[in-house]
Amino acid sequence: MCASHAPDDAAAPESQHGYLSEKEKYLARVRRIEGQARGIHRMIAEDTYCIDVLTQISAVTSALEHLALGLLDDHLKHCVTHAIASGGKEAEEKIREASAAIQRLVKS
Amino acid sequence: MCASHAPDDAAAPESQHGYLSEKEKYLARVRRIEGQARGIHRMIAEDTYCIDVLTQISAVTSALEHLALGLLDDHLKHCVTHAIASGGKEAEEKIREASAAIQRLVKS
Amino acid sequence: MCASHAPDDAAAPESQHGYLSEKEKYLARVRRIEGQARGIHRMIAEDTYCIDVLTQISAVTSALEHLALGLLDDHLKHCVTHAIASGGKEAEEKIREASAAIQRLVKS
Amino acid sequence: MCASHAPDDAAAPESQHGYLSEKEKYLARVRRIEGQARGIHRMIAEDTYCIDVLTQISAVTSALEHLALGLLDDHLKHCVTHAIASGGKEAEEKIREASAAIQRLVKS
Repeated sequence: MCASHAPDDAAAPESQHGYLSEKEKYLARVRRIEGQARGIHRMIAEDTYCIDVLTQISAVTSALEHLALGLLDDHLKHCVTHAIASGGKEAEEKIREASAAIQRLVKS
Repeated sequence: MCASHAPDDAAAPESQHGYLSEKEKYLARVRRIEGQARGIHRMIAEDTYCIDVLTQISAVTSALEHLALGLLDDHLKHCVTHAIASGGKEAEEKIREASAAIQRLVKS
Repeated sequence: MCASHAPDDAAAPESQHGYLSEKEKYLARVRRIEGQARGIHRMIAEDTYCIDVLTQISAVTSALEHLALGLLDDHLKHCVTHAIASGGKEAEEKIREASAAIQRLVKS
Repeated sequence: MCASHAPDDAAAPESQHGYLSEKEKYLARVRRIEGQARGIHRMIAEDTYCIDVLTQISAVTSALEHLALGLLDDHLKHCVTHAIASGGKEAEEKIREASAAIQRLVKS
C-alpha cells in the first residue's frame, strides 16, 4: 500500500506517456547505479588502476545515498504522514521503523 | 602496472584453475553487488515497501565500502609501498593520491 | 516550544530531584563527548601517536552520531508527530526540515 | 617517536615564536571543536530547537572528520613513509595499522 513510489501514480492513466512520475525518476536513477556497478566490474576485470576503481566506488556510494535520501523523504511525506494523521499504534510503529532506517543509513 | 589486483596473479600459470586469487575474490564481490543493485531495481519496479528498499540500499552501500577498504589496503601494501621503496617524486604523488581517495571514501 | 528535550519535563515538579529525564540523559552524553574532545586536545598536545588520536576521534564521531540519532528519533516522535496531527502547512515544513537534517547527518 | 605532529617541529628553535607549525594548526582546530562541543551542551541545556542542535552536531562531526583526514595524511607522509623506507616487518605493521584506522573512520 505505502510503496516506494508515490501512491497516486495510478490515478492518471491518460498521462502515463510522456510524464515523469516519481517512480520513473527512481527507476532511472537505479538503472544508472546498475550501470555504474557494471563499470566497477569491468574496471576490476581489466586491471584498472586501484585509485580509479575507488573513485568509481565513491560515485556509486554517493548515488545510492542520494537515492535513499529521496525515498526516505517521500516515505516521511506519504506513509509516515498518513499513519500519524490516522493516529494510533501504527503511527508509532512507522516512526520506530523510519528511525531504524535512518540509523542504518547514517552507519552504512 | 599497479592495478586493482595483486600483480603476481600471472606468476603461477598452473594454479589458474581452482585457486582463488585476490582478483577473483574482488570480482565475486562486485558480482554480488551488481545482483544487489538489480534487486533494488526490481524492488522499486514492484512497488516494494520503502523501508525494505532502504534496507537493501544500506546493504549495497556497506558492501561497496567493504570492497573499497579491501582495494585500498591492497593499494597501500603494493603500489604505495613499491613507490616509497623506490623513493623520489612518485612516492609523494602516490600518498597524495591515496589521501584524496580516503577523503572521498570518508565523505561518501 | 518543541525543544531538544521531551516537552513534559516540566510537568512533574516533585520528581525533579533524582529522576533521569531524557534531557538529563542527553546532557550526560554531551558531557562525555566534551571530555572526549578535551582528550583529543591533550593527546595532540602531548604528541601522542597519530593512530591513537585517530581512534579517539572515531570514538567521538560515533558518540556524536549516536546523540544525533537519539535527538532525531525524539524529534520525529514529538515535534513532527504533533505538527502532522495538527495538520496544515507546519507539518510539511517540519518534514522538509527533518529531511534536510537527515541529509546533513548522512553526509557528515 | 612518530607522533601527532611533524617530527621536525623541534628542529628550528629560533622559529618557535610567530610561526604556525602543524601542531599549532591541529591544536587550534581541536580547540574550535571543544568550543563547538560546549555549544551543543549549552544548546541542550537551554532547550534549543532539536533541528538546530542537529545542525551543530553535523558541524562538529565534519570538523572531526577534517581533523582526522589531516592527521592521517601526515601519518602516511611521515611515519608510514619512514617505516617503508626502513623496510622490514615494521612497514607491514604500519600499513595494517593505517588500514584499520581508515576502516574505523569510514565506518564512524
